[in-house]
Amino acid sequence: MDRIYKIKQGMGGRPAIERDRKLHWLKGELFGKYELGDPVPAGEHKFQAPVMPSIVVCIGLNYKDHAAEMNKKLPAEPLVFLKPRSSVIGPEDEIRIPSWAGRIEHEAEMAVVIGKRASQVKAADALNYVLGVTCLNDVTARELQASDVQYSRAKGFDTFCPIGPCIAAGLDTSALDVEGWVNGERRHHSNTRELIFPVPYLIEHVSRFMTLNPGDVITTGTPSGVGTLKPGDRIEIKVEGVGTLSNPCVAG
Amino acid sequence: MDRIYKIKQGMGGRPAIERDRKLHWLKGELFGKYELGDPVPAGEHKFQAPVMPSIVVCIGLNYKDHAAEMNKKLPAEPLVFLKPRSSVIGPEDEIRIPSWAGRIEHEAEMAVVIGKRASQVKAADALNYVLGVTCLNDVTARELQASDVQYSRAKGFDTFCPIGPCIAAGLDTSALDVEGWVNGERRHHSNTRELIFPVPYLIEHVSRFMTLNPGDVITTGTPSGVGTLKPGDRIEIKVEGVGTLSNPCVAG
Repeated sequence: MDRIYKIKQGMGGRPAIERDRKLHWLKGELFGKYELGDPVPAGEHKFQAPVMPSIVVCIGLNYKDHAAEMNKKLPAEPLVFLKPRSSVIGPEDEIRIPSWAGRIEHEAEMAVVIGKRASQVKAADALNYVLGVTCLNDVTARELQASDVQYSRAKGFDTFCPIGPCIAAGLDTSALDVEGWVNGERRHHSNTRELIFPVPYLIEHVSRFMTLNPGDVITTGTPSGVGTLKPGDRIEIKVEGVGTLSNPCVAG
Repeated sequence: MDRIYKIKQGMGGRPAIERDRKLHWLKGELFGKYELGDPVPAGEHKFQAPVMPSIVVCIGLNYKDHAAEMNKKLPAEPLVFLKPRSSVIGPEDEIRIPSWAGRIEHEAEMAVVIGKRASQVKAADALNYVLGVTCLNDVTARELQASDVQYSRAKGFDTFCPIGPCIAAGLDTSALDVEGWVNGERRHHSNTRELIFPVPYLIEHVSRFMTLNPGDVITTGTPSGVGTLKPGDRIEIKVEGVGTLSNPCVAG
């Protein structure tokens, strides 16, 4: 099972594959055919977001327990909203907490990265369009979310979409533990088997109206356990089989 | 005053500048320094969307008369939502009307194209970040907009964001006629002096939370006059000084 990283190099990043616990440069095309290249030299590597999506498609209220904690009715269909690519950051990048936007909260999510152009895909075929799984933090200005009604601003701030640390291929998206930890204390703990709308359903739903391109991300929603992020906090999102996405929070 | 077009060439497009009624290839960088290149050979040119934004930032209910026709209260702040780049098409491209999504409607809008990276920009300085003005049709699945609450699906379908035909530089965004015509009948007729939140205010509001990149689009909302689009219809959006954005509608 491959894990795909992007290792920082100067101003850019270079994709690398972890296979059998060894890290190799990716040779070929991430969204085409690739193989293992030369081993990545040992050392302290820094990682970028493993992919830069053209859009992040988000699903709201996709765990019953989170709908309950928000006092909201379960949706009859997936509730779709968008985060812009300008909000995406990678592992260890700083989440900037604005001073003027009210309470800022974390949401620990399992996300899938699209591997090939997906339009009008049926659920039965949907997993063929998935490159792999990553961790995503759907950072939210909770009070703006309520007052704006539309989620675009509350969830669209720069740095409000950490993803990573890698894209894990070959996982079964229907039964993965999802956790969120703040300063070493566990806040979220659930499993994707609790999703109201599972990944194949979501891909059919979204690709019915919009074309998804390689590298685009669909994130599956947060379980209960949302809570405040303040400057100085460290938030970690863990998805089983992927690893830990860890980000410090700073005044922003 | 320059008008910037993108002329179709094979699978791609090449930028061209109309100055003093003559069309020249753009020499240099659209978002850097450019000058007039060779004259574009005479002929029947086909145009693409003049720019492919990373995101289209939209403003809802920004004309009092449209808020009234939708029976909605005037917002205290700009109502922000996003259209994905996958929804963008150019002049003469087909708007696909889905059979399953209820009533599809046109919205005639004046949009601005961002010319340089904009973060935390003040209104007084905002017009320095605008490359120019274009026409935009914020096509909307009106019934899904109401039932979904979030606008992302209703306004995010493939082909639901025609822009063009050009980017007109040097216009005064505060007093431009905006019209929408369906099959030769005028449906929208207003002027950007009726905007509740004018362009400089919108750029400050949006760039306060998200970074805008060169080529990104902010569209300023529709005046009253929204109405149904059906397969076979032709919809034209006219913005004073820009020209006409014309698109046929097909069953989709």
